Amino acid sequence: MSPPERPGPRHVFRLEVRVFYGDTDQMGVAYYANYLRWFEMARNEYLRAAGCTYARLESERVRLPVTEAGCRYLQPARYDDLLGLEAWIEEVGRVRVRFGYRICRDGDPEPLATGFTVHACLSPGGPPKRLPESLLRALEEFEAASPPARPLPEPGGRERR
Amino acid sequence: MSPPERPGPRHVFRLEVRVFYGDTDQMGVAYYANYLRWFEMARNEYLRAAGCTYARLESERVRLPVTEAGCRYLQPARYDDLLGLEAWIEEVGRVRVRFGYRICRDGDPEPLATGFTVHACLSPGGPPKRLPESLLRALEEFEAASPPARPLPEPGGRERR
Amino acid sequence: MSPPERPGPRHVFRLEVRVFYGDTDQMGVAYYANYLRWFEMARNEYLRAAGCTYARLESERVRLPVTEAGCRYLQPARYDDLLGLEAWIEEVGRVRVRFGYRICRDGDPEPLATGFTVHACLSPGGPPKRLPESLLRALEEFEAASPPARPLPEPGGRERR
Amino acid sequence: MSPPERPGPRHVFRLEVRVFYGDTDQMGVAYYANYLRWFEMARNEYLRAAGCTYARLESERVRLPVTEAGCRYLQPARYDDLLGLEAWIEEVGRVRVRFGYRICRDGDPEPLATGFTVHACLSPGGPPKRLPESLLRALEEFEAASPPARPLPEPGGRERR
Repeated sequence: MSPPERPGPRHVFRLEVRVFYGDTDQMGVAYYANYLRWFEMARNEYLRAAGCTYARLESERVRLPVTEAGCRYLQPARYDDLLGLEAWIEEVGRVRVRFGYRICRDGDPEPLATGFTVHACLSPGGPPKRLPESLLRALEEFEAASPPARPLPEPGGRERR
Repeated sequence: MSPPERPGPRHVFRLEVRVFYGDTDQMGVAYYANYLRWFEMARNEYLRAAGCTYARLESERVRLPVTEAGCRYLQPARYDDLLGLEAWIEEVGRVRVRFGYRICRDGDPEPLATGFTVHACLSPGGPPKRLPESLLRALEEFEAASPPARPLPEPGGRERR
Repeated sequence: MSPPERPGPRHVFRLEVRVFYGDTDQMGVAYYANYLRWFEMARNEYLRAAGCTYARLESERVRLPVTEAGCRYLQPARYDDLLGLEAWIEEVGRVRVRFGYRICRDGDPEPLATGFTVHACLSPGGPPKRLPESLLRALEEFEAASPPARPLPEPGGRERR
Repeated sequence: MSPPERPGPRHVFRLEVRVFYGDTDQMGVAYYANYLRWFEMARNEYLRAAGCTYARLESERVRLPVTEAGCRYLQPARYDDLLGLEAWIEEVGRVRVRFGYRICRDGDPEPLATGFTVHACLSPGGPPKRLPESLLRALEEFEAASPPARPLPEPGGRERR
């Protein structure tokens, strides 16, 4: 997995969620698969904020299934933590789009996790198709209109590898 | 919730599953919502054993959504436990069917949990319909042909209330 | 399952959540086990609003595992629905507590689901113990201080059985 | 994410699981976060087969939290599919271990997904520690003793990027 590109001047959308008991495992931290659920939540709300909900895309016979996903777990999320889920567009191609994500704990500048998802654009039946104009325009305008939600903290030397 | 009826002479189907890490929560036991997932697994395999998979029912435009579910949690299931999931038919009506369940730990006669689900029979669009003949016949023949998988242990005085 | 008691003069806590894609199944509605997750979310936030978070209870060596849960599914929840999760205390005993729940769709007076959970009070090791005074007092004061969040709509004749 | 290394002469462990209804989403395919659950199942059973269950490691105060995970989704898994989950060790370091995975559908040589997880070795409190000798020895002997379960099919030109 290439390191998730830091969002430069791009719009970053932020959503808050609580870590619930059912998200934890017996290590006392959030189970690793749940981060992909959080990525979906952030992505879903990003699209809504851009004025182009995924529900509407589906009604227009567009599907954006995930073709690749990756996550780096830097610090554990714990029960009852209030998380900030951040999503942004990393790349838009003709038939695919790539989102980046960061998950932060309230008040902690260091991210708990970073990640990405790549999505193909398909018809319900299956054949790939171009990303719809309505989506492309919405993403563009969203980027142009909105300043970054807030300066993202430098992750510093924390990223362990 | 009325106490789950003990299956009398009925056929009980048994499926084994492992408790995985992602099933646990930070109390060190399986999270309570996962029991409903296990009920579904047992129900799914019961129907397959009866020769009438739910996948086939769906292809025949039958849906059996859950209209009610209940579970009594008697003893905790723990990570890496090998569970026996037992399902049986408790009642078949014209437009609904009720399943009963018991979850046991390998080698432990006392159940970890008992429960039930009630299902309506619907067309994909929504309107209720009668349970299909193919399902009714399969369930009947399954009951008639198969002796109970094994005598069920008496739950004894363990059920706390 | 006895029908969930309608909350009379009691305090009802309300929390909003979005139905995400991962909550749905191929019937196009929210999977039935997820309702128990939503119940947990509502219960968790109820306790926080009452000034006695479950996280604090755990730090005081109190566990409230679920010993029974039940849910009636009245109407399906769908992807991207905004749900109102309502929780209230139905009964407080010496060593157990019972919560009631209703799940509504934004703008729809008819509930999508009603349910309950019963919780035992245990030490981490296991032996039952009395509900801590701090919790009892918090619940009492919360009830006394707060008027019902809003009049609950009469569920009418919708509850199918 | 670098492409998951094809297992050469290494031991590949294989586990079968059914895709249940609760694994699907309204696109009619398995939800993408569930693949990480399947990876965990395969990893868990790999360690058991090697004679060193993760449950035992935990009892010896070893934790192997995931620090990175990635998945490529090549073909969708569908409800009621019987999946073969394959796991193998890709790399063992002093304080970390990397697993590789492939998910296949019964009877289909093309994988549905490939992926990896990287795990740090920690004490319960948190400080990193060396992988325990018992684990290293078990993995080594497992590799030495067991021939590859079966020749892995060449994935051919299917991997879309």
